[in-house]
Amino acid sequence: METAGPAALPAPVEFERTPDTYQHWRLAFDGPVATLSMDVQEDGGLRPDYRLKLNSYDLGVDIELADAIQRIRFEHPEIRTVVVTSLKERVFCAGANIFMLRGSTHAWKVNFCKFTNETRLAIEDASTHSGLRFIAALNGICAGGGYELALACDEILLVDDGNSAVSLPETPLLGVLPGTGGLTRVVDKRKVRRDLADVFSTVAEGVKGRRAVEWRLVDAVYPTSQFKTRVAQRATELALASDRPEQGPGIRLNPLAPVITDASLGYSSVRVDFDRQARVATLTVAGPDGSQPSTPDEMLGEGDRYWPLRAFRELDDALLRLRFNEPTIGTIVVKTRGDAGHVLAVDAALVAHQQHWFAREIIHFMKRTLKRMDLTSRSFFALIEPGSCFAGTLFELALAADRSYMLDDPQQTNTIALSAMNGGPLAMSNGLTRLQTRFLATPDVVGELLEEKEPFDPGAALDAGLVSFAPDDLDWDDEVRLAIEARAALSPDALTGMEANLRFAGPETMETKIFGRLTAWQNWIFSRPNAVGEKGALTSYGSQSRPEFDFGRT
Amino acid sequence: METAGPAALPAPVEFERTPDTYQHWRLAFDGPVATLSMDVQEDGGLRPDYRLKLNSYDLGVDIELADAIQRIRFEHPEIRTVVVTSLKERVFCAGANIFMLRGSTHAWKVNFCKFTNETRLAIEDASTHSGLRFIAALNGICAGGGYELALACDEILLVDDGNSAVSLPETPLLGVLPGTGGLTRVVDKRKVRRDLADVFSTVAEGVKGRRAVEWRLVDAVYPTSQFKTRVAQRATELALASDRPEQGPGIRLNPLAPVITDASLGYSSVRVDFDRQARVATLTVAGPDGSQPSTPDEMLGEGDRYWPLRAFRELDDALLRLRFNEPTIGTIVVKTRGDAGHVLAVDAALVAHQQHWFAREIIHFMKRTLKRMDLTSRSFFALIEPGSCFAGTLFELALAADRSYMLDDPQQTNTIALSAMNGGPLAMSNGLTRLQTRFLATPDVVGELLEEKEPFDPGAALDAGLVSFAPDDLDWDDEVRLAIEARAALSPDALTGMEANLRFAGPETMETKIFGRLTAWQNWIFSRPNAVGEKGALTSYGSQSRPEFDFGRT
Repeated sequence: METAGPAALPAPVEFERTPDTYQHWRLAFDGPVATLSMDVQEDGGLRPDYRLKLNSYDLGVDIELADAIQRIRFEHPEIRTVVVTSLKERVFCAGANIFMLRGSTHAWKVNFCKFTNETRLAIEDASTHSGLRFIAALNGICAGGGYELALACDEILLVDDGNSAVSLPETPLLGVLPGTGGLTRVVDKRKVRRDLADVFSTVAEGVKGRRAVEWRLVDAVYPTSQFKTRVAQRATELALASDRPEQGPGIRLNPLAPVITDASLGYSSVRVDFDRQARVATLTVAGPDGSQPSTPDEMLGEGDRYWPLRAFRELDDALLRLRFNEPTIGTIVVKTRGDAGHVLAVDAALVAHQQHWFAREIIHFMKRTLKRMDLTSRSFFALIEPGSCFAGTLFELALAADRSYMLDDPQQTNTIALSAMNGGPLAMSNGLTRLQTRFLATPDVVGELLEEKEPFDPGAALDAGLVSFAPDDLDWDDEVRLAIEARAALSPDALTGMEANLRFAGPETMETKIFGRLTAWQNWIFSRPNAVGEKGALTSYGSQSRPEFDFGRT
Repeated sequence: METAGPAALPAPVEFERTPDTYQHWRLAFDGPVATLSMDVQEDGGLRPDYRLKLNSYDLGVDIELADAIQRIRFEHPEIRTVVVTSLKERVFCAGANIFMLRGSTHAWKVNFCKFTNETRLAIEDASTHSGLRFIAALNGICAGGGYELALACDEILLVDDGNSAVSLPETPLLGVLPGTGGLTRVVDKRKVRRDLADVFSTVAEGVKGRRAVEWRLVDAVYPTSQFKTRVAQRATELALASDRPEQGPGIRLNPLAPVITDASLGYSSVRVDFDRQARVATLTVAGPDGSQPSTPDEMLGEGDRYWPLRAFRELDDALLRLRFNEPTIGTIVVKTRGDAGHVLAVDAALVAHQQHWFAREIIHFMKRTLKRMDLTSRSFFALIEPGSCFAGTLFELALAADRSYMLDDPQQTNTIALSAMNGGPLAMSNGLTRLQTRFLATPDVVGELLEEKEPFDPGAALDAGLVSFAPDDLDWDDEVRLAIEARAALSPDALTGMEANLRFAGPETMETKIFGRLTAWQNWIFSRPNAVGEKGALTSYGSQSRPEFDFGRT
């Protein structure tokens, strides 16, 4: 049991990958069909204290998966169907590696599940918004996180070989929940009857063959002899219905190459400066320089250097590094700098051409990155100062923040502005825009604000309810400093729970249920002795000893 | 710090009260207005290790509150407005007692919050469905759970005395969340802007006066000199719009007087038998005997002896006793016995007269009791056997169960039946009926099943998807026994989380958000060292030492 207990984190985690260096996946293209095959290297884990047997995965495997989905969207616009399968014989995927989980800190478990959830939701986002269809081609056993990956696909096809089953063995074997949306997707996406879901989630061996179809757990089963043909046939059928372009070329996603020091993360348009003593980071996003593309051809010409794509790739990378590599940074001060006019020009071009595949991909990527911010369990305070460019898409950073402070100094111009990008394309995971969520009490205000073509000065912004506070130049320094200091003194756990409740007012969706209901329960279970205690089920798994439970129900 | 750590539970907890023996509330009636005044006795706590200062409360205080709301509905149908206020000078309510929380086990904290949440939701249920309006008349400081009680009322009126504020100091003072719906109701019910809610929830002193109105935290503030008059005036205004009857009389809710032994709980129509070794209880509900009332006058004539009211009061009491007094009973086997025809006759009478106040109250009470079952963190298995009466309202017990087993023995008649009560009146907290939730994948089936006037035999019930399994008489004993034994062996925490996810497929409402998102996060925080550890904020409160946090964010 030397691997139990919080192992050292593999810090810093890097989130960039390239297909030619994938360790765990093979990505192949054939006309409109891509095949993404899992082939996890047992000794390729992020930490040395576990082996990734039977296509079980750790964060590193999932980072490659997320990268592959992203590249299919940007680099291969001609792809219409993605077949997700495995190169291991009679094994699709055994799920998240249990020894990895057992040896991880609580925070690592939680952040690992959050990332893998985001990856699966990115698959569904590509399906809903980007004309891609995903087939899970289950060529063998498919357990736990393996089945949760399949659940994120549009269709699940299972080989009928008398042995291969789908299963969620977390509760019966490990005393935890399937942590990557499994329970939610079973009853909410696939609409499996709750009593059958109850049985399915408590039998370690899972369900196979006809019963798996009858219970709606998979869409079809095929004998081994027909399996590959049927999968290929279905992939071709699904490709026909797509609205993706007939052919590419896509654009290349080149490495971000940040400059990393102990005090900062520096990208071309994003910068993070750490004040570790105060447990505060300042995240600054720079707007675009000079004139911006106004046609899809011009956008494609800039490729991954096109500002919205570049800046949001950098923002996404920075948020992930903050989550995994900077756990004690509790508060993130969000700033922007640049010319609001250029930001609004980018917004206008993206909205004008949102039917074009490249603009569409950029918009949805910005949306996903902003959702990543909503779901990052750190406090965000936006500071709106002269020289900033909180306009349109970048004003979403202020709306995503827990609070915003806007300097009201009569000597200096300081404005914010809205654009069509605040009116729909960047919806939160609750299905509403951030403006709609903000103005739940007065929904008519949203339309009126979006009509406003002029920028808002601090007084107007405060009156409109677009910023939290607008201190004058005499009060600014003290008010902002005290707010940040006060935040840093609070319990980080209470803040995580508080923010998770206050940020998501209004409707819930399958996506918010996964991050709210399911994840919160899983986090609770991940901190309970019955799972992670000395004799807990997760701790005991794979050892000689059986788990011992405190059978008191909570 | 001798009170920290899990104190002995005040077992068994009793849930019946009568107004003449209330310790903590005064209930007064004046025409259509009832005044419910909090006056908590400091030394009247359920345990001796804390004092209920400043109208702080424990479970005992909340049991009286729940009783008062229930009696107003049944015993005083002429009441149209309820003013909730305090008899303490300059103090409305200081919230849940912190020393009580600190000295409670984790399970007690969780069940305490669940009960207080149900009480507040019962207030909102009375407002939405029963023509009652609630005014929170805040005559002084109103903190934490005190403000959460106010949030459950229709209107919040605050005295403007320069001192009295509303506040949610849990996060800044205690390192936990407001556990009784506070965060959810602030942003979802009162639709306070999320950034203002963030500020409000992190300042221990709260918000008072005009700002409290501007931030939508209260509906009005009045100077001390006008406060009582304005409250009385508003109470009268609200009473005018009610559809409650002009006058009573109501019916009397007499004591249930269960016979309690170590092996069983026995009521007139409900019985619970314990197999403590197996950690299983059998809950049996007996249907009505003989002919049943068919008019409101006949129903009123039976008063609290009328079967649906009596049986569901007993069921409600039994569920609460199971939650608080029987923590190691993990599985509850649900049975019924009696004549399905009589149950269906009761259903028909209630539906026919659902506009009558008494039938209406009974229906909503049955609904709330069934919700209590949905929210009880124990596994429920329904066993449908010959002689049972799982029909209409009582079939909801099978639908609320995690699974149902129906004996298919050709030698014996064994049927289930639906009624109009399965088609709407007994909605779950997600806003759907249990049939709608069950058949999310095939919504048209629900209407077709409700059209079916004949009872379903085991084959038909299984085909229709109304039961999980229908073993024959050869398999029955083994299959049921093995299922129950297997359930009892699983981690109780994983089951609690699993059931909380599988039971609530489909839409989320403010109510389900409170029990899903908010409660699950709170339970997580309640198990974290930053709250309950030796140096946690909840542990340190009121002592000389300041809390020390692990500042790693999760």
